Amino acid sequence: MSLVIVGSVAYDGVTTPAGKVDRMLGGACTYIALSASYFTPASIVGVVGEDFAQQDVDLLASRGIGLEGLERVPGKTFFWAGVYSADMNDRETLATDLNVFATFDPKLPAAYKEQPYLMLGNIQPALQRSVREQMPSLRLVGGDTMNFWINDFRSELLETLKGWNFLLINDSEAKLLSGESNLKKAAARIRELGPKILVIKRGEFGATLFHDGGYFSVPGYLLDSLKDPTGAGDCFAGGFIGYLASRGVDVNAPAGELARAVVYGSVMGSFCCEEFGVDRFRTLTRDDIEARFQEFQKLTAF
Amino acid sequence: MSLVIVGSVAYDGVTTPAGKVDRMLGGACTYIALSASYFTPASIVGVVGEDFAQQDVDLLASRGIGLEGLERVPGKTFFWAGVYSADMNDRETLATDLNVFATFDPKLPAAYKEQPYLMLGNIQPALQRSVREQMPSLRLVGGDTMNFWINDFRSELLETLKGWNFLLINDSEAKLLSGESNLKKAAARIRELGPKILVIKRGEFGATLFHDGGYFSVPGYLLDSLKDPTGAGDCFAGGFIGYLASRGVDVNAPAGELARAVVYGSVMGSFCCEEFGVDRFRTLTRDDIEARFQEFQKLTAF
Repeated sequence: MSLVIVGSVAYDGVTTPAGKVDRMLGGACTYIALSASYFTPASIVGVVGEDFAQQDVDLLASRGIGLEGLERVPGKTFFWAGVYSADMNDRETLATDLNVFATFDPKLPAAYKEQPYLMLGNIQPALQRSVREQMPSLRLVGGDTMNFWINDFRSELLETLKGWNFLLINDSEAKLLSGESNLKKAAARIRELGPKILVIKRGEFGATLFHDGGYFSVPGYLLDSLKDPTGAGDCFAGGFIGYLASRGVDVNAPAGELARAVVYGSVMGSFCCEEFGVDRFRTLTRDDIEARFQEFQKLTAF
Repeated sequence: MSLVIVGSVAYDGVTTPAGKVDRMLGGACTYIALSASYFTPASIVGVVGEDFAQQDVDLLASRGIGLEGLERVPGKTFFWAGVYSADMNDRETLATDLNVFATFDPKLPAAYKEQPYLMLGNIQPALQRSVREQMPSLRLVGGDTMNFWINDFRSELLETLKGWNFLLINDSEAKLLSGESNLKKAAARIRELGPKILVIKRGEFGATLFHDGGYFSVPGYLLDSLKDPTGAGDCFAGGFIGYLASRGVDVNAPAGELARAVVYGSVMGSFCCEEFGVDRFRTLTRDDIEARFQEFQKLTAF
C-alpha cells in the first residue's frame, strides 16, 4: 500500500577510504524512497533548487516514485559534504549548505493526504508533526530524528513522538533521548514516549527491534567491500517501512512481520554501502534483495 | 569428552559503575573452566601462590573441575585490578602483579596428556605451544591471545597458531593480527595462519564465526543489568569449547554444531556479566543455560 516519505533531497560530496565523489545525489528522502520503492508504491515530499538535475529526477521516476510533492524553488539544492574515518564508523562534516532546505515547508499534494503509510525523515520535529496532522487515515506512521533535535528541540520532539507508531534511531541517540545507558532500559523509556515499535540501529553491528512482544536482533551483514556508508540508515528505514507497507499491517503487526521488516531494512542498508551514493540502486533488482534476505537466514540460523 | 584448560588463575580487584570488589577469584583459566564444566569434564593447568584460599579451591572442585594440574608454589597469586568505564566497554588497568604467574611453566599431569580437547588461555605463545606439543591425541585444540603477544611476540605467535584448529579473538585483535580492517578479509587472512575455525568476539554486539562453510553471526544478549564484564570473553570460550567437547567433534565439525557452540558461548558470557567475578556460577544451573539458549533462538528467529 502507498507510502509517503518526507525529508531532505540533496547533493552530497563524500570522501571515504575507497574514493571521493565531489557531487552526487543524496538526502534522506531520496535514499528512503529508492529503498522503499522495491517493496511498495512510494511518493516523496521535498524541496530542491534550480540546479537539481533532470537525470536525478529521471532516476527517481524510473523507480516509480511519485514526485508530485517534490517542490522546485529558486536557489540551490541542499548540499552536504563530509569525510569518513578509516573504519567508516565516524565522519566529519566539511560543509552543510542548507540553501533551499533552510525554509523547507512540506506541502502535501491532495492525493497524498489519504495515504495509509508515512515515513518522516530527519527534519525539524514541528514540521514532522504538521505533516502527520494532515494525514487523517494513517495506518502506520513514524520516522527518524537526530542528536540536534534531541538536545535543542526536546519538548517539540517529545510532542511529535506522541503521534508516532515507530521510531528508527541509532544507539547513541537512543541513550541520549532516554537518559539510560542500558539499551533495554533505554528502549522501554522511549517506547513510553509514543512509538510502540522501536528500532535501534547499530551500524555494522546490526539492529535491534523492541515491541510489545519483546525484542529481536539481527547482526550486521559482512560486506566484501564497503565503499560509502552514506544513506545506509535511510535505506534501512526504506526497507523497513516499505516491507511493512507492502504487507498492509498497522501498529499491531505480528512480531514475525516486524522482524522480517528489520531484516529487509538490513538488506537494503547493506546494499547501499556497496557503491557511492545511490549508485547501487541503478542496478539492484528485487531478486538481489531476496537472495540477500536468504543469506541473512543462513548466517543467523543455528 | 575431557577438556584440558591452561591459563591464569588469579585474584582480581574490580570497580564498575555497579560496584567495587577489592579481591575476588578470577583469571582466564578459572572462568573458562567454570563455564566449560557445565558441558564436559574439565581439568585445569595453572599456578597459584600460598595465599590461594581453600574456598576458591572448593568452588572449582564443586563443579567437578580436575585440579591435579593446579600447582601451588611459594609467593602470592597473580593479582589484577582495574576500573571500567561508564558503559563498561573499556577498562583501565590499575595493577598487574604477576607474582607466581611471572614464572608460570605449565606442567601437564600424565593423565592429562591423552585428553582429546585443549583450550589455551591467553598466555605467552611459546608456553601455549609447549603444552600443545605434549598432547599427541588431540581432537581439537585452540585458544585465545591478546594485543601484547600480537605486537611484541608476533613470530612466536604465528608459529603457535599453525598448530591450532580454532582461535577466539576480539575484533580489534583480529584487525591487528591480520592488518585488515574489513572483518571478512581479516578473517580470511587469519584462517590462513592455521585456525580453520575462527570466532571473532564483538563484546555487547555478539560474535561472528568463520569456517570453511562461510560465516555465522549471533547478536549480543541484552542484559537487564550488567554488573561486571570481567571474564565474559573467557566464559564465552568455555561455553564454546565445552559444548564442542561434549559433542565429540573435531575440526570438521558440522556448521550447525559450530554455530550452536557460538550461541552457548554467548549464553555463558551473558551470565558471567550478571554478577561480580565468578559469583553467577555459584547458583547457575544447566536448566538456566538451556532456557537462555532458547531465548537466543526466539530473539534471532524471523
